[in-house]
Formats: sequence, C-alpha cells, structure tokens
Amino acid sequence: MTEAPARDINRLLRPKSIAIVGASETPGALGAVVLANLVKHGFPGDIHLVNPKRETISGRPAVPSVEALPEGVDCAILCIPRVAVLDTVRQLAARKAGAAMIFAAGFAEGGEAGMADQLEIGRIAREAGMVIEGPNCLGSVNYVDRIPLTFISTDVAAPSPGGIGIVSQSGAMAAVLAVMLLARKVDLTFHVSTGNEAANGVEDFVEWMIADDKTRVIAMIVEQFRDPARFLALVAKARAAGKVIVLLHPGKSSAARESAATHTGAMAGDYKLMRAKVERAGVIVAETLEELGDISEIAFRCPSLPSGGTAVLGESGCFKALMLDLGEELDLDLPALTDDNAPDLRAALPDFVPVSNPLDLTAQGLVDPDMYTRTLAALFTDDRVGTVYAGIIQTDPGTVAIKLPPFLKAIDEYRSTKPIIFAGLDEGAEMPAEWIDKLRGHGIPYFPTTERAFRAIKRLTTYSERDFAVAKAAPSRVPALASEAGVVPEYRAKALLGPLGIPFGKGQFAATVEEAIAAAEAIGGSVVMKAQASALSHKSDAGGVALNLMGADAIRAAWDKMFADVARYDASIILDGVLIEAMGARGLELIIGAKNDPQWGPVILAGFGGVTAEILQDVRLLTPDLTREAIIAELLSLKQAALLKGYRGAPALDVGSVADLIGKIGQLLLGEPRIQELDLNPVVVYPQGQGCVALDALMLAE
Amino acid sequence: MTEAPARDINRLLRPKSIAIVGASETPGALGAVVLANLVKHGFPGDIHLVNPKRETISGRPAVPSVEALPEGVDCAILCIPRVAVLDTVRQLAARKAGAAMIFAAGFAEGGEAGMADQLEIGRIAREAGMVIEGPNCLGSVNYVDRIPLTFISTDVAAPSPGGIGIVSQSGAMAAVLAVMLLARKVDLTFHVSTGNEAANGVEDFVEWMIADDKTRVIAMIVEQFRDPARFLALVAKARAAGKVIVLLHPGKSSAARESAATHTGAMAGDYKLMRAKVERAGVIVAETLEELGDISEIAFRCPSLPSGGTAVLGESGCFKALMLDLGEELDLDLPALTDDNAPDLRAALPDFVPVSNPLDLTAQGLVDPDMYTRTLAALFTDDRVGTVYAGIIQTDPGTVAIKLPPFLKAIDEYRSTKPIIFAGLDEGAEMPAEWIDKLRGHGIPYFPTTERAFRAIKRLTTYSERDFAVAKAAPSRVPALASEAGVVPEYRAKALLGPLGIPFGKGQFAATVEEAIAAAEAIGGSVVMKAQASALSHKSDAGGVALNLMGADAIRAAWDKMFADVARYDASIILDGVLIEAMGARGLELIIGAKNDPQWGPVILAGFGGVTAEILQDVRLLTPDLTREAIIAELLSLKQAALLKGYRGAPALDVGSVADLIGKIGQLLLGEPRIQELDLNPVVVYPQGQGCVALDALMLAE
Repeated sequence: MTEAPARDINRLLRPKSIAIVGASETPGALGAVVLANLVKHGFPGDIHLVNPKRETISGRPAVPSVEALPEGVDCAILCIPRVAVLDTVRQLAARKAGAAMIFAAGFAEGGEAGMADQLEIGRIAREAGMVIEGPNCLGSVNYVDRIPLTFISTDVAAPSPGGIGIVSQSGAMAAVLAVMLLARKVDLTFHVSTGNEAANGVEDFVEWMIADDKTRVIAMIVEQFRDPARFLALVAKARAAGKVIVLLHPGKSSAARESAATHTGAMAGDYKLMRAKVERAGVIVAETLEELGDISEIAFRCPSLPSGGTAVLGESGCFKALMLDLGEELDLDLPALTDDNAPDLRAALPDFVPVSNPLDLTAQGLVDPDMYTRTLAALFTDDRVGTVYAGIIQTDPGTVAIKLPPFLKAIDEYRSTKPIIFAGLDEGAEMPAEWIDKLRGHGIPYFPTTERAFRAIKRLTTYSERDFAVAKAAPSRVPALASEAGVVPEYRAKALLGPLGIPFGKGQFAATVEEAIAAAEAIGGSVVMKAQASALSHKSDAGGVALNLMGADAIRAAWDKMFADVARYDASIILDGVLIEAMGARGLELIIGAKNDPQWGPVILAGFGGVTAEILQDVRLLTPDLTREAIIAELLSLKQAALLKGYRGAPALDVGSVADLIGKIGQLLLGEPRIQELDLNPVVVYPQGQGCVALDALMLAE
Repeated sequence: MTEAPARDINRLLRPKSIAIVGASETPGALGAVVLANLVKHGFPGDIHLVNPKRETISGRPAVPSVEALPEGVDCAILCIPRVAVLDTVRQLAARKAGAAMIFAAGFAEGGEAGMADQLEIGRIAREAGMVIEGPNCLGSVNYVDRIPLTFISTDVAAPSPGGIGIVSQSGAMAAVLAVMLLARKVDLTFHVSTGNEAANGVEDFVEWMIADDKTRVIAMIVEQFRDPARFLALVAKARAAGKVIVLLHPGKSSAARESAATHTGAMAGDYKLMRAKVERAGVIVAETLEELGDISEIAFRCPSLPSGGTAVLGESGCFKALMLDLGEELDLDLPALTDDNAPDLRAALPDFVPVSNPLDLTAQGLVDPDMYTRTLAALFTDDRVGTVYAGIIQTDPGTVAIKLPPFLKAIDEYRSTKPIIFAGLDEGAEMPAEWIDKLRGHGIPYFPTTERAFRAIKRLTTYSERDFAVAKAAPSRVPALASEAGVVPEYRAKALLGPLGIPFGKGQFAATVEEAIAAAEAIGGSVVMKAQASALSHKSDAGGVALNLMGADAIRAAWDKMFADVARYDASIILDGVLIEAMGARGLELIIGAKNDPQWGPVILAGFGGVTAEILQDVRLLTPDLTREAIIAELLSLKQAALLKGYRGAPALDVGSVADLIGKIGQLLLGEPRIQELDLNPVVVYPQGQGCVALDALMLAE
C-alpha cells in the first residue's frame, strides 16, 4: 500500500470532473442513483457517462467505453459488475484518471480469484498514481462542496460549515453513523467508506482530514488497520492540531475476530494491543455505536472538551442516588460540593436545597427558574468543576418553556467555555424541536436519556486528563545482542540486561559442577540451581530447578539429578550449564512481559503473576515511552492494586522500583527492535525502599 | 405499618367520591390542577371542595372545612401546606374518609417535628383504617377508569385495556417513568407514588396490583423497602400469577446509600443483600432507568418473555462483529447456527449469505424483502432460538416501507409466540410513526438503538432461565443451641454443627494440658492447638493458634505460651481451654459465611477466601433454600471458578461437597433463626471425591 498525497485524495473527494462508468437511467440502478445525486446537487464540473449500449442517458450524451473518455478525469465511479472492474481500472489508468470508486463486492472477501484481482487493482493504482476507494464500498459524501459520490440516494441541504468527518471501512456503518449524526444536527464534512482498501486505506483519508480545515473531529469505524505505525503517527499529528479522533473497533471478543477475518479479508489483530497503542497516541475509543455518536457529538458541539470534575444538576433525590451509583460504577469524578465549601452555589439556592453533588434542585425551578441561571453561574466559576451535566425532567412543552430559557441565559450572559450536557430524564417527553435546536445553538448537546451522556462524559474527561508525557530517557542499545538469535537462555539474558539496570538476584553461571560449587560459596547462604540451554524454555517442567541448596555435597547431588532429569525430559537438550543464584526473599509476585508486535510495535505487559491473576487477567498493557509517574499510575490501577499500597497493615511495596524496571524495559525495546519477546516472571516486589528483583528472564531475539 | 386490604386501596385509587381539601381556582395552584384534571376526565362521582374562604370554586359549591364534609368520602386529596396536614388527617378520620393523599413535604425528611407528625399521621390512619398516600408524594393516576389524582396536569385519552402498573416511592421518578412508557405507547394501568409512606408503602400497592386483573407487569422504583419479608412473599405470589415485577433500586454505591438516608428518611439497606433476595423471589432488577423502561416494555409487549438462545439478524459484517463483542460482554447466549446445522435457515437465504449467528443478511433485503419472512419462519421453528433480535438499517421512509412488511407478514402468517425485538441501527433515521405503531401492534417492541435492546434481552432471558426450585430438605433444629447466647466459641460451635453433617477436622476440646496431650495422642500425627473462649473472636491476633505440634513436650510448651500470649493480649479473657485438631491437608481456601438479616432474613455468602479475594470481592450471596444444583451453579459463576474446575492440569475440586455444606447451612438458618451470624473461614476444598473441611467456625447467637 502506498500513501496517497492530499492532492490525489482531492481528485476523489473534491473532483472537478466525474465519469460514471455504467451510467444508467433505470430507476434504482447504481449508475442512475449516482447520476441523480450529482444532478440534484448541481455538480458544477463535467459529468461523463459511460455506457456501451446507449448514446444518451437521461438526456445527457454517453460514450461507449472508458477509452472514449477524455484524458485526466478526476474521479471515475464504477457502477459495474465485479467481473468488469479489473479491466476498467486498467483502462482508467491508461486514460490518466485521478481516482476510481469501486462499489462491486466479491474481491478479497470472495475467494482466491477475487483476492488476485484486488491485488492487481492495487498494483495498477500504485503504478498509475491513482486513488482507489473500495472495492466493496458504498462511496463517499462531500458535505462541504455538496458532492455526493454514492449509490445511496442522498440530500445535502447546505454546504457544511465544518464539523465531523467519518472514515469507515464498512460502508453500511459509515452510512448509519452519518444518519445518526445528521439526525442530531451535527455538521459533517466528508464521509468515506474504504471497503476492501485495494490501494487506499483509512490512514490516507484520516491524513487528508487532519489537513482539512473544516474537519475538527474524525469519527472512525475500523475492523483492521493496515498500516498501524502510520496511523499512530497521524493520531499524534491530529492531537497536536487539536483534532479529536474517536474510534469504534470491533474485535474485543474472539468470536468477533473470527468474524472479521472472513468479512473483509483482513486478518484480525489483537484488540487490547491495538487499544493500548491508539489510546496512547491520542484516540478516544468508543465501546459501542451509541458511544461513538455520543462522544463525537459532544466533541463537535461543546466549546471545550469535558474535563476535570463533573457537577450534576438534578431535580429528584432518587435521581441523585441513581447518578451516584452510575458515577461510582464509571469512576467519574463528582467533586464533593457542600454548603461549607461552595459559598457561591449556596447563595444561588433556596435554603431548603442543600449544596451537594449531584444537586437535587427539587421542583423549585418551576417557580424560580432563575435558580438554574444562578446555579450555572456559580458552577462556571468553581475550579473543581470542569463539566456541567443537567439531568432535567421535561414533562411537557409548557414545562420546557419554563426551564430552558434560564439555561440559555446563563450561556448568553456568562460565556463560559465549560461544557454543559443536557440530558432529559423522561425519554420521549414532548420536547419541542425548537428547544433542542436552541440548546444546540448554545453549544449544549441534548441527550434523550441520562445514562449515555454520563458514559460519554467519562470517556471524554478521561481523554482530557490523559497523561501524554513521554519519558525522556534515550533508547538503550545492547551491542552484544547482535550475536544472539532465537531463544536467549536465562543466564545470557541476565548478562545482557543486568548492565542496563534491570535488577536480578546475585548469581553466576557455572559450566561445570566445580564452578557451581565455587559460585555457591562465593554467593553464600542457600542457593538455587537452574538448568541453562536455549532449547529449555520451561525449566521447572524438566526438573531444571533445585531450590535451597547449601554446601558442596548438596550442589553435587543436585547437579547430577538435574542433568539426569533434563536428559530424561528431552534427550536432545544439551545444557550449557547451570545458573547459581542466591535464594530470593519472599514478596509479592508480578509478571513483566514485553513484545515487539510486527504491526503495532513494542508493548509491555505488567500485572499480577501466578495462576489466580492469569484467570483474572489483572494486567495492564503499556507503551514503552511512558514516564515513571504514568507507569506508577498504571500499576496502581490494577484490580489488586490494594496489595501494592500495603493491604491490611502490610507495608506499602516499592512500586517505584517496578516502574523503573518497566521504564528500562521500554528503553530497551525502543533501542533494540530485534528483541521479539521478553518475560520477567516473576518479578518479586519488596517493601518501599527495598526494590524488586526479577527472578527469571526469558528472551526471544529475531 | 399495617397492611391495607384491597377494598381500602380501592377507595384511594378507584374512588366513588373525592374531596379536594384546599381546592382553588388560582391557575397553577395544586388544588386547581387537581380539580381541573378530574373535571377534564369527567369524573363521574361526587367532588367535594373544601376552602375556608370561598363559597364557590370554578362555579362549584365549596364547604368551609373538613367537618362540613359528608361522612365516608372515599378519597381526600390534601392540597394544603404542611402545617395544616396533621389536623386535617385527624378531622378526615373523624369524618370516616376512606383515604387521604398528602402532597406536602417536610415530614420525616424534614427533621424531628416532621417525623413526629408523620408518625402521628400513621397512627391515626391505622386506628381509623384509612389509607394514606404520602406525604411528600405526587399522587396517582388511574388509567383504567381515567381518574387522575395528582397536581400534575394529566391527560388520559382512553381507558387502559391493561398493561403496566407503576409503583414508586419517588413521585418525580414515577412521573418520569410514566412519561417514558406512554411515549412508547405502552398501556399503563395505575401509577402510584408513595412518598414518605406514613401509613401505606409500596408493598400495599404491589399487593393490590397483583390482584388487579389489568396489571400484567409492575414497574417499581424503590429506595428502601419498609417490609422486606412481605414484599418477598408478594413477589412469589406475582410470579405464580404470571406477573412480572421489574425493580429499579438505587443504593449500589456507598454515596447513594448516604444520599437516600437524608432524602426520604428511610435507612438505607444493603443493596447486594436486597438484590440477592428479591431476585431469588422473582424480581427482575434493572440497573438504570433506561433498563427499567426497556425491560418493562418487552415484558408488556411481547407475546412471551425472551428466553433461551437469541438469534441476531443484521445487515452488515461490522455490525455482526460488534454484536459478537456485546454478546460476549453480556454473556448472552447466541446459539451457533451454521450452514450444516440449520437447513431451514440455509434454504431461506441466498447462496452468498452464509448461515451464522449473528446473521449478516447484507443489503439483499432491499431486492428480496421476502428473505426476512423466510428467515423469521426458519428461526421460529428452530428450538435453539428462543428470541429473535433484528438490528435493521432504516435509512429513510422508502427503505422502511420495503423492509418492514415482511416482518409483519411473518407474524401474521406464522403466529409464533417467540419474542421479536426490533432495533434500528441508525438512531434518528426518519422512521415513520405508523411503522413503529405497526411493529408494536404485532407485538414487536421498537428500540431506537441496538445496545439497549441487547441488554434488556439479557436481563429477561436470565430471568426466564432462572432456577426457582427450592431445596426439599427440612429446616434443621439444634436444640442444644438454646443454651447459647452471644459469641459461641469454636469448640462449642463445632460440637453443635458437626452432628448436622458440617465437615470439620478430627478434633477434641481440652480443658487442661493433660487432656490436650491425650487428645493429641488420640488424634495422632501433627496437631493444631487453638485457644477457646467466647470473648476471643480473633484467635490468631492474640497468639491463640499453634500449628504443627507433635508430642507431649510440644503440646505442653504451646499450652503455656498460648495462655501467656492471650493474657498479654487481653487480661480479661479467661480461656475455656483449647481445641486440639489434626492438621488439615492443604487445598483451595473458600469462605462460607451466613447471617440472619433483621430485614431480609437469612443469607449465605460463599466465595474465595484470603486477602486477594477480599480485594476482588469474589463472593456470591445465596438464599438458604437453593437446591444443590443451583448452589453448584453459583459457585461455578465465581470469577475464579476456573480454580474449582481444575486449572492447568490440577484435579477438579469437590464443588459438590461445598454445595452440600452450604445446603446444610441453609437448613440450619431456616430452622434456627436465633443464629445471627456464622463464619466458616476457611473451608478447604479437596479434589473431587475428597470433600471439604471447615477449619474454623465462629457463631453468633441471639
């Protein structure tokens, strides 16, 4: 896949001339709808119609073949059967067309022949510098210039002033999302469905939208990124430009991953890994289609993104309790506002309404509507509050006409940039559209229920508070690694990594039993003996670990038994020798792992070790560039973090030392891409000030 | 609180005569709206107006006082300030009024004087046999007879044919829920807000609605049940009558519990305990207001409750993957339908659509709408499918007009009673109301988004599949318990419980060191010595446990040390002696606890023991009447259940023996209500066939 420069995508999405290959006047035919869409919107450029059987179509002249087109048409829309697509693309390349949009399905997702044709389309496009949308796509809509390029009957009332761009692999979902957002009177800029991505993928369109002045938010639906590294770089660029990217990505479940593999021909990636990486880069990940729309709308409409603490305005004690439940479930920060600590708010409310958060304003707003304005004004100046959520009972148009003006007045008078989210408690209440429009006109999103707004606020405040700082330490190089390939046994891995500052126990490699005895004496006390060989990844299973050895006789006996046991386990394994180490003191066991994913790059796994943790999946995935503070925050967000903090009178553990270790692993992964996998399991953590020790090390080099 | 017989509630909700105390003609005044509501709906009975200052109100005669009312008015509605309420109630009792509805606030929730007045109102009502709704309520609406009894302006278009009854403590939330359900064209029967429940609580109204022919579903919003035992009995009665009770109950979070305590004056109970009990009795618990409406609508509208496996109809591969993700998250059963195992479905679909679940029907329905009918017909006859979920892209009215008729046709032709839930993918698409009405007319609920429908189906199928079987074993009596009170020390608890079949280790109580030595010899092997005294609940902390003792000298030394340590720990503790037991073999440690809650009755807690599990809260709350199979199912739904099943090659553990133990605890709790608390911690579980052993026992008797 090649990267398309912006001018090429312009030829697809902002064409000056268009060719409809397979133009038609049969009602409902793809080629007829595409033409009707363009005519209806008064497309100002040339429209060339190609149809071998007709000289005119809907009163316009047609040419019989692509060969008869003028050179250099910007965008060709292929409304033709699958079998004719490859030849047509070839002919379009010859006619120097700028872009081709291919609706037909049956390519990569339709078996070997389809896959071969798709690859050939990609090759031709790259060679000719032609942009391809599809195959197996539903086309695009350019809302800015009012150019629909799709076989779905489309109406774009007015040129978009700027807003949300949609990039989706699935054409159906792109259309669904567009309908959802337009129904909420969100302004769209472009919506693009990339389908099978024969030549151009979501990355190309995201790059183009980041550069587009009118696109402020990009809503994406992606089943598989084809160029993850490029996407991550683009996300960082978008963030720097103040643009928000919201992503819905199925594949959390194993069943969904299998389903994706058969659908678009894309191999499914690892959802958790993808998610750790894109969130780190600056993507907001939506869990559901509802969330994708909700988050995108708030990001589009509010004067700033929700951040900090959320103040909740309600009108019922029961609702207050429900919101406390939901807030705790979501771990949403609801700052504790009280009569004592919020004097402005106290002054804004009648005596019988105590200051609290959520607030229970009771039905008082019906007799004293200005209370809403005063309340908002007090919240606008309260630094603990970054976001205001109003869960309001609408009842009927009369009630709405009393309650809403004070909200609008607060915006008009105080011009705060704090986001206000309005959620109706009584879904389906007769809420006149004009009032919803007025709220929206004042930068207040309107939600028909309370729960969704809360969830969306949580996602957005988490994003706003996310720590994007990058660790300053330089990548580590390990020159000696050059001589390693495949499985690097423990003693050599420790020898390579120890100098970087990874804490291992006191130990020594021994190639003979005499060396082992000498090593044990040098170390002193009880020692552990571990069999060493590249081919022996699972020492314990093979009898390759002996604990608590003291004295020459014990070492000798253990040596003999170990060599015999390993030989019995697998006669082909020749041991390099053994590692003699001091017995580690007991402590809490963590697992620290790392891998260099061929798609997404290096990632570190950190969490609780042992059988229980494996069942509970109590681990975090970290990118290798986190700061010490961010790593500590991640460790303290493990489900069993209480154990690290000093549970039930136990001393707090040295989490900082674990963060240092993880930081060093990160530097290493960034400096040595040849390291494919690394397992430090267990890493034993001791009380504060006493550090941690990696008891084992298993490394896989390229 | 007394229980109100049905005829008394009839006087409140189906009154033949009404008195409005504080009647008014001032627009917006409570007494004016109440009167206007009744007049508007043509209330056929007598309306008596009470106002000390006016002889006529809105052209109707008024009397100056309650004393001037005729005797035996059915329902008096008090539209008067809080200060006048108590006297008025007293006068109404004297006039033999049947019921009083009190809107005013400031009673139990407003301090001591308010509380005293409320208690007095309750006393008067009980004495006079008068029903009270409120105080601090919003009134009721009788949709069946078209009688609004509320100060909210209300329109009931036509008498309700029967449907959902609403019972809520919060008046605001009752009104909100009514608006939500009516907007969905759900038929309501009655909605009641009980407020502070001075005399009558939600239990009275639920009982009355269970008896009401027209109420099929009861939707409840409750912050605190005042008579849990009665409510549980009513739920069982409702279930036997085929009526569904759906409950929204805030208080999951600690913050919400505190909030509730200040709101209605009700002490907050334990949410988890409440939930275990009401679910066991047959309530469907909703997590949010959205869910309350969604579950209630499906229960109201579908020809049967969702149950069994769910088949998902979709029209996009990406949507299919999203639904697989959500299905896995919710643990919703999506039976695996394939080309091979579903021949009818295979025959219903075009070749290029593989049979799967979720199904991806593609856009084919636009050219072959009958495919939807054929697909539904095939699913109707498939026993693996109990529920059909259709996630359909609506796009525009033209598309809807193509896609919906085949759904309606399937219902008309095949008359299946399997529930079909319709969810629009593109929320906000122009979906004509007439089509939504037609779906509803065919028993198909319409959801504007996909996620909520899925969640509601999950709650309902879980309910349908719930095992309501009751264990057959009789309650156990322990006559010797009569002599115990307060903390029962381990040796006596074991002596009492052992004969019931609770497995304890081999052991013997010893009051002297000689007895201890003899006991150790009789038991053989290494033993454990544990200090025994009622006052010593936490033996380990006091040095009251000595492990691995062998031989007379060791016993003697341990005895001396233990008595000394305990005396140092707390000089006031006089030990009864020690318990000598065989050292238990190692195994997986569970905790089994029980308590007899004064509100909700006996409940058993079972889960993983130890520090980690305490952090993870990996426990289940069980009622004492579960069958062995149900207990095993609960144990196997613990987060770490994999450890019980035999993890990583370890043998499967004897879960059956734990279920037997729990069953016996259940019998005990049912037979001996004097047992307030019981802790068996740890209970060590051994491999299949080797049982389990409770190492410790702590009991608290009344």
